[in-house]
Amino acid sequence: MTEENDNPVVGLNIPASIGMELSEVCTPSLIIDLDAFEANVALLRRRLEAFGVRLRAHAKTHKSVDIARYQVEHGGACGICCQKVSEAEVMVAGGITDVMVSNQVVDPGKIARLAAMAARARVLVCVDDRQNVEDLSSAARRLGVNIECLVEIDCGAGRCGVEPGAPALALAQQIDASAGLEFAGLQAYQGAAQHIREFAARKSRIDAAIEQARSTVSLLAANGLQCEIVAGAGSGSYYFEAASGVYNEMQCGSYIFMDADYQRVLDDSGAGISEFNNSLFIWTSIMSTAKPGRAICDAGLKVQSVDSGLPVIYRRDDIEYINCSDEHGVIADPHDRLALNDKLKLVPGHCDPTCNLHDWYVGIRDNRVECLWPVSARGMAL
Amino acid sequence: MTEENDNPVVGLNIPASIGMELSEVCTPSLIIDLDAFEANVALLRRRLEAFGVRLRAHAKTHKSVDIARYQVEHGGACGICCQKVSEAEVMVAGGITDVMVSNQVVDPGKIARLAAMAARARVLVCVDDRQNVEDLSSAARRLGVNIECLVEIDCGAGRCGVEPGAPALALAQQIDASAGLEFAGLQAYQGAAQHIREFAARKSRIDAAIEQARSTVSLLAANGLQCEIVAGAGSGSYYFEAASGVYNEMQCGSYIFMDADYQRVLDDSGAGISEFNNSLFIWTSIMSTAKPGRAICDAGLKVQSVDSGLPVIYRRDDIEYINCSDEHGVIADPHDRLALNDKLKLVPGHCDPTCNLHDWYVGIRDNRVECLWPVSARGMAL
Repeated sequence: MTEENDNPVVGLNIPASIGMELSEVCTPSLIIDLDAFEANVALLRRRLEAFGVRLRAHAKTHKSVDIARYQVEHGGACGICCQKVSEAEVMVAGGITDVMVSNQVVDPGKIARLAAMAARARVLVCVDDRQNVEDLSSAARRLGVNIECLVEIDCGAGRCGVEPGAPALALAQQIDASAGLEFAGLQAYQGAAQHIREFAARKSRIDAAIEQARSTVSLLAANGLQCEIVAGAGSGSYYFEAASGVYNEMQCGSYIFMDADYQRVLDDSGAGISEFNNSLFIWTSIMSTAKPGRAICDAGLKVQSVDSGLPVIYRRDDIEYINCSDEHGVIADPHDRLALNDKLKLVPGHCDPTCNLHDWYVGIRDNRVECLWPVSARGMAL
Repeated sequence: MTEENDNPVVGLNIPASIGMELSEVCTPSLIIDLDAFEANVALLRRRLEAFGVRLRAHAKTHKSVDIARYQVEHGGACGICCQKVSEAEVMVAGGITDVMVSNQVVDPGKIARLAAMAARARVLVCVDDRQNVEDLSSAARRLGVNIECLVEIDCGAGRCGVEPGAPALALAQQIDASAGLEFAGLQAYQGAAQHIREFAARKSRIDAAIEQARSTVSLLAANGLQCEIVAGAGSGSYYFEAASGVYNEMQCGSYIFMDADYQRVLDDSGAGISEFNNSLFIWTSIMSTAKPGRAICDAGLKVQSVDSGLPVIYRRDDIEYINCSDEHGVIADPHDRLALNDKLKLVPGHCDPTCNLHDWYVGIRDNRVECLWPVSARGMAL
């Protein structure tokens, strides 16, 4: 133990200070490879510009004002999506002026907050219920604001959303006739297809969603209702929706970071989707090597979500993360290569709920801490 | 939507205000049934007093200064356990004066912080490595403090800890000979046995751990080293360790809350362990009923850990939580009983990592909010 390692700046849950070398960053913490992150942002921008569709980047992935602003300022995003009113409130407070809550807002208190936000920013929200349309209209009229509403159709995810076709038309007509509301288009996100491994199976599910969106858009048009926005798509499928001629606004989120589960999603050649690079890692230390053949690291369930599988140790095939408990990870280390305080990069199994566990992103470039970004909307679940 | 529901106090991530009715508490949020919680605390106190062993309650479960203080002031706890230095720092700042980090602390910066804490509180820590003992001794001597060290033995969990017997003796002798350190005893926690469903299988694993602890204590005593503390046990096994005559300090954590997975642990009659009651719930609202036979609630992966299974809907066998995504839960509702904004109590699958996702506990008694306790050490993973 050396004096220079006793960094008095770092304390409680602050894992690093700017200028520090990566090797000094406290663990477990969430680090971003800034070069990889920026390349991902630039790549999706180019891809969507080539398709001629908009990006409304999903902030549910990162919950960071800094990253949302970067996506708007450098990544070609016309605005952002959020999943929760509180998440959107943080983003608007942080200077984002165009926010879609890509979800239902049905609680009276949250509707009032959504309407209040519409006095300060462009606010869009999804609906799938007639009473909810009435409640949104009441709140908007009371505050004299305008809320843009998208009808959410269930195009296969089995979650929220009305059936495509006639039920969507009825709701769109109700919105169009409601004071304080503006009909903005369709939300048609096939969330259940994003992580389907096999290319053809994934394409087939998205093709079905596209046809449901297409026929609903046509039905609405035949009834005099134009969809300014036809929204959906994620990092695992956007190239289908963007090429459809129907969708015009992509809601990709994970593309900035990627994760171990997305790496198991295959492209049309049967290889892993590799256009985006892993830029997000859990930085972890070895804390016990008391037993041969294994090492214990300090990254467990409280710094990562294992709902989509265990993390993958980045660029190491000689060791494997094999078990996870609250504060520990067990690493198989058959050649006993790991020593106390050795550090590893873990690719989290699922990026979104992992980020929501952390207070800070530690941005790394050229092996040094370049920035500390707060996870501004961490825990904003209301 | 009614005016009186527009609660201006509640905002961002604050789900409630004191005096509010439960039905008004914003969702998704973490609520505590205070009567059930207090009964659990009182019950374990009585049980351990009857066994004549101490309780050192594990704060990793709740990460709350308020709850830790309650356990010390009303629950018979001699002190608390933490798993992380940052967690312990919060507890000491909050007035807890006797803290064991029931884990290895090997990072130089964290060792320095642990030593600094020992100037303000009784500090104990677990070790399983000779170099670590040297580093702890250096840090303690530098600051002129005393750190009490327990030798952790691996009694079957396969995580940290040296082998019982001779390796434990060697480490204990090293601690005993190290300036600034005091040998305090053994840490012998069989974490892998806590959730074994079947009583006899669980007992057999704990019996093996007890024998390893017993023989190691004897070996140490034969070499002139007394174990002031023989620590371990959790809510699923404490009655074995407490009756052993070897263990004298129990580290139960989950007993205050319980969870769906602990409910699947069986007692010797083959029934679920029922001595402790569920006191912790995720309070959730129905946000979409657009499809027959199912409803969507607002509690997904970002407000609960599903590592040990999906949540159970409390005292409802007519509906079932069947699927979980980032911000949504899918509820099978075959009789279409659920309506928008209906609220439900979910028993989380695994309490510890679920609590770590929240900023507030909303304490409920007689259907009203009695207190709001911050999850003071939430996210303290360093």
